[in-house]
Parts: sequence; structure tokens; C-alpha cells
Amino acid sequence: MPAPHPQLNRHGELIHLLSTEGLPKAIMTQLLDTAEAFLSIHQREIKKVPLLRGKSVFNLFFENSTRTRTTFEIAAKRLSADVINLDIARSSTAKGESLLDTIANLSAMQADMFVVRHSQSGAPFLIAQHCAPHVHVINAGDGQHAHPTQGLLDMLTIRHYKKEFHNLSVAIVGDVAHSRVARSDIHALSTLGVPDIRVVGPKTLVPDSLRPLGVRVCHDLREGLKDVDVIITLRLQSERMSGALLPSSGEYFRTYGITPERLQWAKDDAIVMHPGPINRGVEIASSVADGERSVILPQVTFGIAVRMAVMGTIAGNMA
Amino acid sequence: MPAPHPQLNRHGELIHLLSTEGLPKAIMTQLLDTAEAFLSIHQREIKKVPLLRGKSVFNLFFENSTRTRTTFEIAAKRLSADVINLDIARSSTAKGESLLDTIANLSAMQADMFVVRHSQSGAPFLIAQHCAPHVHVINAGDGQHAHPTQGLLDMLTIRHYKKEFHNLSVAIVGDVAHSRVARSDIHALSTLGVPDIRVVGPKTLVPDSLRPLGVRVCHDLREGLKDVDVIITLRLQSERMSGALLPSSGEYFRTYGITPERLQWAKDDAIVMHPGPINRGVEIASSVADGERSVILPQVTFGIAVRMAVMGTIAGNMA
Amino acid sequence: MPAPHPQLNRHGELIHLLSTEGLPKAIMTQLLDTAEAFLSIHQREIKKVPLLRGKSVFNLFFENSTRTRTTFEIAAKRLSADVINLDIARSSTAKGESLLDTIANLSAMQADMFVVRHSQSGAPFLIAQHCAPHVHVINAGDGQHAHPTQGLLDMLTIRHYKKEFHNLSVAIVGDVAHSRVARSDIHALSTLGVPDIRVVGPKTLVPDSLRPLGVRVCHDLREGLKDVDVIITLRLQSERMSGALLPSSGEYFRTYGITPERLQWAKDDAIVMHPGPINRGVEIASSVADGERSVILPQVTFGIAVRMAVMGTIAGNMA
Repeated sequence: MPAPHPQLNRHGELIHLLSTEGLPKAIMTQLLDTAEAFLSIHQREIKKVPLLRGKSVFNLFFENSTRTRTTFEIAAKRLSADVINLDIARSSTAKGESLLDTIANLSAMQADMFVVRHSQSGAPFLIAQHCAPHVHVINAGDGQHAHPTQGLLDMLTIRHYKKEFHNLSVAIVGDVAHSRVARSDIHALSTLGVPDIRVVGPKTLVPDSLRPLGVRVCHDLREGLKDVDVIITLRLQSERMSGALLPSSGEYFRTYGITPERLQWAKDDAIVMHPGPINRGVEIASSVADGERSVILPQVTFGIAVRMAVMGTIAGNMA
Repeated sequence: MPAPHPQLNRHGELIHLLSTEGLPKAIMTQLLDTAEAFLSIHQREIKKVPLLRGKSVFNLFFENSTRTRTTFEIAAKRLSADVINLDIARSSTAKGESLLDTIANLSAMQADMFVVRHSQSGAPFLIAQHCAPHVHVINAGDGQHAHPTQGLLDMLTIRHYKKEFHNLSVAIVGDVAHSRVARSDIHALSTLGVPDIRVVGPKTLVPDSLRPLGVRVCHDLREGLKDVDVIITLRLQSERMSGALLPSSGEYFRTYGITPERLQWAKDDAIVMHPGPINRGVEIASSVADGERSVILPQVTFGIAVRMAVMGTIAGNMA
Repeated sequence: MPAPHPQLNRHGELIHLLSTEGLPKAIMTQLLDTAEAFLSIHQREIKKVPLLRGKSVFNLFFENSTRTRTTFEIAAKRLSADVINLDIARSSTAKGESLLDTIANLSAMQADMFVVRHSQSGAPFLIAQHCAPHVHVINAGDGQHAHPTQGLLDMLTIRHYKKEFHNLSVAIVGDVAHSRVARSDIHALSTLGVPDIRVVGPKTLVPDSLRPLGVRVCHDLREGLKDVDVIITLRLQSERMSGALLPSSGEYFRTYGITPERLQWAKDDAIVMHPGPINRGVEIASSVADGERSVILPQVTFGIAVRMAVMGTIAGNMA
């Protein structure tokens, strides 16, 4: 088990980003403020800033995700870092080397930051606990546990469109039980003071056992969406689309898909979010995904800014 | 169907490079002039220029081609761009996302340029029509349709060795029917005023239906090569080397392979070109490929300069 | 057969690094001195130096090795080079193009340096002999022949901990017969004046035929380790772990594995090295690998500095 705040140093400064759980509100707000400042960089003629110049960022994707890796690569390059992409599946781990030996070796190459995606929950924690003190770890998604930069970019998106958190109702719709995105969102929303967080879906995907997270469990979509300000739809993994947990993707859409009609249950100015890639006609109707209340593409843009903010903040706290 | 000149903005400036077809002569000439200037950069101690500093160039190779991708990567890095290579086969498209959703997402990452290779003719057009206005598309080869940077580098090569276009005879030998290189060459040669363009090969690979392109169709190699200034040999794809269209690669070489003896049918100072990679003893005899009239390796060098010119010109026309 | 010193120009300056065999002591010492200077760069806030700015370094790994490729990529980027990683297995060589045609094409892209790993002994020599004069070749491991940067980083490690070479006893333990690392180490140790070089292992892996290299062949581990200053353990390839050459990996460890008890046969301040990745419990006990006399992780750090020194030195000798 990790110590209470393994992502902070003894001065309470961010040195790793492992989870939105336990991340103090002040740090979260500072990250969002910094990301907002980086958003304006996108408008400039030259998009680079030298915050990570001479630093080496290693993308360690034990689980493949071209899209997420790309957003981190862009963010790091805009901060002027050198980026090393490691095709872990083909590297020494395949030769039987242990995770910690791989990490020790990469640390010895004078890496400054590891961006880690791993199918095992907790792997980035393990790495942060065992890597050399000059190395900083960013969790890019671990198992069903956490995806903190997605959580933060969702918060940036919500703040951008809704300004405040303290008066919001937010519905998270879909396979909440197996979603690291949902988990990171819930912890961040709680910390930032959202009073009404609902998780919505069938009992197999949204069990009552989620209640201790401080959420309202709704199995009825109308109840879940009623008067909300924000709808976060989750990607339905294909392995859930048939079998024990769910009869079929068509059946899911009929009951929980976000259509223009159902969108009316929410507030008039509600926004619709999705971490991507979307399954059109499964989680969401095409007309909603492409509609005026969808902020799915702005989420992607905000994701670059948030990742720059996380890397830049951690770099500023390097020993 | 694309609009008449989807690659030009309303001021007639180049904003995408999709095809040599419909590319005005003035722009083509300007690109060749710019490329010539970049050739001298190769001689300098430091090869970089800051034209694309802070810009993000995404290599989107839906069809694999390490060689072509590498030339674009080098060209972009010499212009100081950040280059993101996307292994599309392993990315979200594999998760069932549509091409246009993938493109919308990558655009939202604040990409500035997409270099696109795709097995489907027209895919880069489709992308250029649907991507955000801040994104610029360069076609790096689409199906059997077009390969405009190859066409332009071939023109740069011809101009370098022959100075003028208006008095040339050019023979394109091989599988013209299925070749995007041939198509891009023919359009460029026509626009630049070459009066005598011949396409040479067996009826299965060089059908009479090519005539409307403004070329002379020759099934006899001697007739095709007679007194030409330039011989462009095409790569014979292995799938054509046996079966319905062609009896065998050996048979092809016996009838259409460029040997030292046949080279004599052309002018004394004729140059021999090939887009690479060459099949020795199929399209061309080794002694010709390595001989003094071969300009196959200079083509590669000119290819970097042309790609720098295209990217640099488009960057100059960015909104 | 290569000429006597294909890696030196006629002024005796380093233009390729192909082997530690035949590398003059003065150059080797200069490379170690330069590497030592680069070590201090790792401590600086900004780790980059502009020695290779505008130069293009191509990583040509015909045999996959993520770890070694990464060290070269980091070293080149710290020298401000542009780095192009070529996935050779998927490139034109797969389309039937010959090695020398591939090399000629990449040279024509105005490459400045090729870092080559190849399963065939001698491939980097062949490339150095045939590539354009502006291209410089660094051997990153060829067959069972040579791995000169590993040899040099091992020398840097030894010099760092032992200061002098002239009074050392060094034992190389393991599959010496098939090891390019052992071969490069032995040539470097000899050149630098180490008087006592022992190779230690079973007759199948350490045959008497190694003696002409100037080494003492020991089949008894105790004799091999007695009073040595340095123990270099070699990685046991999995294909050797069973079958004709070796009964099993367990059997190997029982006879030749480095344990805390056997380490006592060496000098009190002996260091233990390994090129990585280690097989715990095969070549070396975990307690030794992680123990205070292990310098396995410092070797990795020194490896970056040595590769920077090699690239920087060659760049300084470019025409």
C-alpha cells in the first residue's frame, strides 16, 4: 500500500502525478490555472516554451494507446523536452526482465520523467516508490484504478464552460465500475466541491457498492440526467458489449445511449463530454456527439494544456 | 468530389498539397525554386532553418512506408518542426473509430500539418475537406491516385539535369496503369510544358485508355525510348509479377527492362530515374542503375529539398 | 576483409567506430576523457550541448534492441542532433532491397551518422566501406563480433572505480565464446594495458581457442576470481540455457553464478559488472546484483556519456 501522499514531497509539492485521489484542492486548482495559461500558447505563432529544455521524458506504455501517448508527446515537445518513446512490448521486459529492473535501468539513463500506462492497477505507484529520486512519474492510466490527467482535463473542461464547481450537478453515464476515468473524475469532482455527482447505468456496470465514493447511484437514465449541468459519457469497452454484464451494444444504446430527446432531461445549457474514442450509436447518438452541446473535441485540446501543466509543475519542483 | 482547387485558398495560395493535377504552373515553379534553395542548405554546417519552429507535423501513414515517412520526418525536422509519428495500424482506428473522427481528434491536438499516406484513393482529399481550418494536409501517396511530392521531386531532378522542360521527350516505363507516381509525373510534366510524354509497357499495364492524359502510348520499348531525354522507370509491384497481368518478372525484364543496350536508343545524355526501391534485374539492369546516367540517388536527395519546400511554402500561407 | 583501420581517416582521426580491436590507445583514452566531461553534463540543469546541432543520426537496428537504441537516442538528442529511428524490419529491406541499396538511399537523405545493429558479424564494416563519405558509422553490436561502445563504457566504468589499468586483474565470466561484449572488452583491456585478463566458464562456452586473444582461460570459477579487481559477468542467452552447450540455467548458476560467498574470492574492493539485462539467479545472485559492489546501474549512466563522446568526437572529425 502506498503512503498517504506519495505524489507530494515533504513540502507538499507535486513530484509525481499518480491519482486525483488525495490530490489537495490547492494543487488541483493551481494545475487548472496553469493549464489555462498554456491554452493561450496554442494561439501563438510559436507554441514552444523552454520549461523542460534538456529534460528527457520517457513514454513507457506497457499497454498500447497511440492517442494518449501522442498527447503526452506533444505536451512534452511543446515544453521543449526530449521525448523517448519506448516500445515496451518489444523491449527487455520481453526478455524476462522484471518491471523494477527495467525501471532502474531507464532511470540510470538519466531520465527525468516517466509517463506510464500499465494494465495493472498500481504499477505507476510501484514505479514511483522504487525509482531514483531524480525521476518523476506521471500515471497515464493504470488498470481500472486511475487516469488522473484525464480527470484533470475533464475538470478544466467543466470549469471552462461552467466557471464554478460548487453549484453543479454532474452525471457520469456508462461502465463506471470498470472505468479509471470515472474514478479519477469522481475524486476530482469531490475535491473541487461539486455537491451532486451521479453515476448512471445498469446494475452490472453501476453497482450500489460505488456509493461510498460519495455519489448517487441511478439505474434510471431520466433520473440520472434530470437537470444536470454536465453529462460525462464513458467509453463502453467492446469486451463488455456482449455476455454476462450487458446483453448487447444495441440494447445498451436503447436504455442508456445519449440521444437528442434524452438530452432535454438535462439543463438547457448542459455540456456533453466523452474521453474518446467514441462509439457512435452505442454510448451516444451521432447528432449529440457532433451537436452544439458536445465539448468532446475541446476536451482533446484541453488535454494537451493539462499535460503541459502537470509536466511543467513537476519540473518546477525537481530537486 | 473535391472542388476545383481544394489545395489553394481563395487568394490562390497553396494550403494543402493533394495532387499535381490542377496545381498551377506558377506554384509548381515556385516550389521547385524554393527546393533548389534548400538544396544548398544540405551543404551548410548546420542544416536547420526555423520556418516551422513550434509547429507540429503529424505523419499519418495508414499504409506503411518507412522510406517515405523518413523523408518527410527529415524534411520537417530540418525546418525545426516537432514531428509526431503515428502508428495508425495500432491506434484508435483499429478500435473501430472512423477516419474522420480520428482526424477531428488529431486536429484538436493542435496539429498544424498532416502528412497522409493511405491505400484508398482520395483519402487525403477527404481529410483536407473535413479537417479544422488550422490544419494543412500533404498527400504522401493515396491508392493509385497521386503522389505529388514524388511528382515534384521528379520535376526538380529533370530541371536540374535538363534545365528546360519545353523541348524534352520523356518516357515513363512500366506499370503506368496502377502507378500514382506515373499519374503525378504526367500531370506535372504537362503543366510544365513537356511536349512529348510517352508511356511504355505491355497492354495490360499501359492501356490505350491512358491517352486522354495527353500521352503517347507505346507497347514497343524501342519506339518508346527513341531519342528521349529522360527515362522514368516505375517500380513493378510484386503482386503484378505473376498472374493475369504479367507472365513473370523475368519475362518483363526481357521485354521492358532497361539494359545498357536499350539505353542507347535514348539520347546520349539521357538520364534514368526510378522512384525506388528498385528491383534489380526486373525494371532495370544493375549496370544501368549504378551507371553514369542513373540519377536515382540524387532523386532521393532532391526529395528532401522538395518536401521542405512544400512544407515551408504551406507554413508561409498559414492563416 | 576491411583495411587495417577502416575507422580512422588518413590523419589517424576517428571517423567510424566499428571495433575496439585496432583502436589506438590514444584515441581510446581521449574518448574516455571526453565521456568523463559529459558525465558532469548530466548534473547540470540543462543537459544539452549543441555539438551535433543540425546533424541527422539514423538508428538502423536490423536486430531489435530497445535498450541500446534508447541509449543512442538519448546521447544524440543531448548533443542536439535530429534522431531518426528506422524500423528496418518493416522497411524496404522487407521488400527485397539489398542492404547496400538501403544504405545508399539513406545516405542520399543526407544522413550524417548511422548507428547500426545487425545480427551478421561485419555488417557495420561493410556499410562503412560502401556508404557515402559524408556518412559515419557507429557499430551498436554486430553478430558475435563486436560491441565497441559497450567495451568503451566498461572501460570508463573500470577507470572510474579503479583509476588505473596497468595493475588490474579482470575476470570475464560466462559465455565468452559467443559474446561480442567479451570480445570488445578484451581488446580494450589489452590496449589499455591490463596485465591479467581471465575468461571464466565451462569448456563449451570458454574454449581454449580464446588464448590467442591474450587471455588466461579458467574453467574453475575460484581460480578465475582469485584476487581480481573487476568481475565482468556476461548475459547468458536463453538459447544457450539448455541443450548441447549447457545442461540448464540452474546448473550454470550452481557452477558459475556469482554469489556473495564466491565474491569473497575476489579482492575486497572488487567491482561487479554486467552489460544487462541481467538474469537474476542465473549469471548472478540478486543480492550481488543489488549489493554494494555492483556497478551495473552506473554502467548504464556511463554508457550515455560514452556514446555522446563517440558521436561528438566523430562529428568533430567530419570533413
